[in-house]
Amino acid sequence: MTFRHRLKVRYGEVDQQGVVFNAHYLAYVDDTIDTWFREALGPSFQEHDWDVMLKKAVVEWSSPAGLGDTLDLDAAIDRWGNTSFDVRVDGAVDGRPVFTAVITYVGVHFGTHTPRSAPDAVRAALGDVVE
Amino acid sequence: MTFRHRLKVRYGEVDQQGVVFNAHYLAYVDDTIDTWFREALGPSFQEHDWDVMLKKAVVEWSSPAGLGDTLDLDAAIDRWGNTSFDVRVDGAVDGRPVFTAVITYVGVHFGTHTPRSAPDAVRAALGDVVE
Amino acid sequence: MTFRHRLKVRYGEVDQQGVVFNAHYLAYVDDTIDTWFREALGPSFQEHDWDVMLKKAVVEWSSPAGLGDTLDLDAAIDRWGNTSFDVRVDGAVDGRPVFTAVITYVGVHFGTHTPRSAPDAVRAALGDVVE
Amino acid sequence: MTFRHRLKVRYGEVDQQGVVFNAHYLAYVDDTIDTWFREALGPSFQEHDWDVMLKKAVVEWSSPAGLGDTLDLDAAIDRWGNTSFDVRVDGAVDGRPVFTAVITYVGVHFGTHTPRSAPDAVRAALGDVVE
Repeated sequence: MTFRHRLKVRYGEVDQQGVVFNAHYLAYVDDTIDTWFREALGPSFQEHDWDVMLKKAVVEWSSPAGLGDTLDLDAAIDRWGNTSFDVRVDGAVDGRPVFTAVITYVGVHFGTHTPRSAPDAVRAALGDVVE
Repeated sequence: MTFRHRLKVRYGEVDQQGVVFNAHYLAYVDDTIDTWFREALGPSFQEHDWDVMLKKAVVEWSSPAGLGDTLDLDAAIDRWGNTSFDVRVDGAVDGRPVFTAVITYVGVHFGTHTPRSAPDAVRAALGDVVE
Repeated sequence: MTFRHRLKVRYGEVDQQGVVFNAHYLAYVDDTIDTWFREALGPSFQEHDWDVMLKKAVVEWSSPAGLGDTLDLDAAIDRWGNTSFDVRVDGAVDGRPVFTAVITYVGVHFGTHTPRSAPDAVRAALGDVVE
Repeated sequence: MTFRHRLKVRYGEVDQQGVVFNAHYLAYVDDTIDTWFREALGPSFQEHDWDVMLKKAVVEWSSPAGLGDTLDLDAAIDRWGNTSFDVRVDGAVDGRPVFTAVITYVGVHFGTHTPRSAPDAVRAALGDVVE
């Protein structure tokens, strides 16, 4: 299961070198995953007694994006661990790979924020690992 | 009474034309006023039963700021109205004026967010209008 | 002539009070106008020997936007002066007015950045003042 | 050799959960390294015929930062490779570790942007690997 998100680069996100400033890629990735999870699990995740805490982010760039570009962002679950799990997001412009990000979250109970494994309904909604 | 704040321009805040992207000026202004108010009134404004809601922002630029520049930001109360009031922030680099902002807030009760005039302690802490 | 732009609020644009942080509105407005002008005038404005410099921004809020909201942004020319001109952008969520911005630009020659009045082709492409 | 940078968290960088939004950490890290390199190597790196291209970023969080916090950011060279090299940045608030980032750059010639190993003067200015 892969979630496709699209974002047009904004003028103010492009730096002096004419390319998207690096921190904005994390914002793009966050917006992709947040949009996906809320569509799949409801506007909050409260009904699943589940929430996520960000643990780690790895971003690797292969080419730049700039003004006028629209990023296609493909997100999928990359790993289901006991309580932690990874989401992979691949970003491309017109089929040209721009970056790959792997984000590690820890799943927690909605209110107490103590670690818990993802409920079956969450795993069903977000999908199995894409091989 | 004037509050002086200083901010070094960050690389990622500079756009393709080599100047600070316009939206960041509002962030600079907000950080200036927020820092001032929390220093003058305590970390939250709860003890004064007072909070602010942003109503209007006017920013006028006279010259650009860019990479390597440090902005001197001078904030002062420009108007005390019944419940609303204005804060003026002047930004300069090495004495060269860069922009002037006037921000209009409405003062509200801390919890209920209903309008109220600024308590005397708040007015004393933030100062009278600078002529 | 009115240009309609749409932007979904991103999680990272929402502040501790649960509303879009004020500086992001200027970024939304800039993206609206930039997208409009590039669609109407070409990817750069070079062929028209015309470019714009930001002079002033006025933003007035009437209600907040938050997570899950999509902003409808309607931009139109509000004033054609000799070299300066105003663009008005109205932002709304599901028909509820959120803010109005008026942005004043100075038109300049593309390369030299000296002031010039807008070429007829530019005025034709962006439209007359909306009454 | 370690470069110390300090950044006060801005109100607009804090999200709905009361913690700094993740993408801003990359902006803090970039500002730390950019400030360090320009102080050590000159306002541009042109005299060294050397520039850097971002290749990879890894950020791992151990605790949150929020409103009122000032981050101490310690940067040091973590690896000198043939043309690529790593910079490590540790962020802490009052001695409490908040995050660790490792940023991989590729060194390039200033004008042509073709890969090159770091000149001796650059390595001397930025220091050897901190064990």
